[in-house]
Amino acid sequence: MRTIFRDGGVVKLIDQTLLPHEVVAVECQTDYELCEAIRTMRIRGAPALGVAAAYAMALGAQAAPDEMAEFLPHVEAVAQRIKSTRPTAANLFWGVAQAKAAAEAAAPRGAGAARAALWELADRLAEADVLRNQQMGAHGAELVADGARILTHCNAGSLATVDWGTAVGVVRSAHRQGKRLHVYVDETRPFLQGSRLTAWELAQEGVPYTIITDNMAGYFMARGEIDLCIVGADRIAASGDVANKIGTYTLAVLASVHGLPFYVAAPTSTIDLATETGAEIPIEERDPSEVLEFGGVRVAPQGAAARHPAFDVTPSRYVSAIVTEVGILRPPYERSLEEAVHAASLGLPSGTSLEGRHDISIAS
Amino acid sequence: MRTIFRDGGVVKLIDQTLLPHEVVAVECQTDYELCEAIRTMRIRGAPALGVAAAYAMALGAQAAPDEMAEFLPHVEAVAQRIKSTRPTAANLFWGVAQAKAAAEAAAPRGAGAARAALWELADRLAEADVLRNQQMGAHGAELVADGARILTHCNAGSLATVDWGTAVGVVRSAHRQGKRLHVYVDETRPFLQGSRLTAWELAQEGVPYTIITDNMAGYFMARGEIDLCIVGADRIAASGDVANKIGTYTLAVLASVHGLPFYVAAPTSTIDLATETGAEIPIEERDPSEVLEFGGVRVAPQGAAARHPAFDVTPSRYVSAIVTEVGILRPPYERSLEEAVHAASLGLPSGTSLEGRHDISIAS
Repeated sequence: MRTIFRDGGVVKLIDQTLLPHEVVAVECQTDYELCEAIRTMRIRGAPALGVAAAYAMALGAQAAPDEMAEFLPHVEAVAQRIKSTRPTAANLFWGVAQAKAAAEAAAPRGAGAARAALWELADRLAEADVLRNQQMGAHGAELVADGARILTHCNAGSLATVDWGTAVGVVRSAHRQGKRLHVYVDETRPFLQGSRLTAWELAQEGVPYTIITDNMAGYFMARGEIDLCIVGADRIAASGDVANKIGTYTLAVLASVHGLPFYVAAPTSTIDLATETGAEIPIEERDPSEVLEFGGVRVAPQGAAARHPAFDVTPSRYVSAIVTEVGILRPPYERSLEEAVHAASLGLPSGTSLEGRHDISIAS
Repeated sequence: MRTIFRDGGVVKLIDQTLLPHEVVAVECQTDYELCEAIRTMRIRGAPALGVAAAYAMALGAQAAPDEMAEFLPHVEAVAQRIKSTRPTAANLFWGVAQAKAAAEAAAPRGAGAARAALWELADRLAEADVLRNQQMGAHGAELVADGARILTHCNAGSLATVDWGTAVGVVRSAHRQGKRLHVYVDETRPFLQGSRLTAWELAQEGVPYTIITDNMAGYFMARGEIDLCIVGADRIAASGDVANKIGTYTLAVLASVHGLPFYVAAPTSTIDLATETGAEIPIEERDPSEVLEFGGVRVAPQGAAARHPAFDVTPSRYVSAIVTEVGILRPPYERSLEEAVHAASLGLPSGTSLEGRHDISIAS
């Protein structure tokens, strides 16, 4: 089952707030419903949000007037609504931008054509996401030796994408190559994407893993029980600074102090060359109640204050390499990121089909 | 209310597994009951465990035969039982050793005298603990400037001691001197001593605080929102290496990278000169179910594996200073720790009363 998929004019997604105990598909018939699912993290993960944004645009266009003078402004309003859901992940904005371009290109042929183009684009981005993750996995697996003990944070797996995953996708590819791996899974407070989602995926894939609390990573590194770290990304600035789930920066510092490689796996759609450095990346501050309670169980005293920055920024100097669908990028990132974005635009030019898909060499 | 206190022949303690929602005193009539309360963390915190160990010895001696040939072996068996509860905190072993010495000293006067000596010792250690914490607070407050934004981890407060606290005791003393403070409270997974206990204490003391998840400390340090860290300790080796709640090491690394002072506050009873370095400190590995659940709510998939080291070791090079009841210790710790233990033994020689108590200058 894919994280997000279309069933006629309805978009369905696995409700990630109910995992791992229940696997329930939520149906979204309007862009409002899909935006709410994004806001409440029923769907999350930067690449998945890119595809969800495109589907939300397609849903929003269904309710737009046929009159073209009103159609495009309506679609623009939908775009604004989607962009207001979550500020950090670059892919969300990328998905909206792709969809706007598709709608505008089809607009001369009428509202019906534009609506069809939006569905087609979203479906295509969904397919392309899986392909990119598999390409990323094949590249990234080169960084993973047989026997590697890998630390990951949050969920950068199938559930953060349409399928396969980014950081977990690299683990998946290395595992399917027959490498013996062990994954240390940060539980990733406050939303517990690690213990709820990554553990669930690794169990399904048959990769041995151990859940640890976020504050244990340093302990296991100091004992020599971790060989490398690999995480996903929500936005990569032109400088190579990486925004990712809160706690990523701490892991990167620890990896540096312990002389361990720290890898980031993300599709080129996560690279935002318009953002110069990490300092410019907006960090979403979520409801502090997520810190004060879990699963309806109140932890802290009544009246307690909390903060909940959902992401942090890891300076590029702590990033050993960035794994993308077009290859492994190394410092200086100013150059390698720009080259990667260029290569990706040539490899998958907008509007072309994915006929090359089956030629991509994926270990299985 | 004190964390642990005696009511005739019954030892009572606040059940810390129920805080902050319920304040319930557990009654222990036997050493078995008190050992179980220690094992299940109804009482925790190194200095509190030192006093609890002495009380457990007193309870155990109640059931010992009057015949002195059997009395001392019985007490020795009680000592072994207590020492098997939790392996890391030095104070537990210190409390047992103090009690054994008191029992042996009184033994020539018979079992009744020995039992009385054990109660007297435990009461005296409880009183001395509060005094030491207040002395520590007065010393440590010198390290805390007006306006300081302080990060702490776990609970090193009243609840980790008999009263006043160690790291939180320093905050308390600085606060009562009129300094304006703000405390960032690590929630401290998996047991949540920060969000459950430290937040509760700070609210009662009227010190402004913000609860954060453990993985947010680096974020706030990088933004310049933290001025210093202060934590407690479970054991300090002769080298100055500090065992403390899991996650402490990570904070110390982060503090070092961000150029922030990292302070440890602990009574001299936490210093274990017989343990040369941190590598020799046994690290308790607790039930992994505490990692797989959150506030009693199952988080991870069924069958998930987890690890739960309850402590980690911070090398002395990351420790800016150690605050004790006899003063602030600086590197080289090999010398300053030995001097502190010596000074403490002179200041509070075994068997003397605490008449000097009211001469100690405590801001109030």
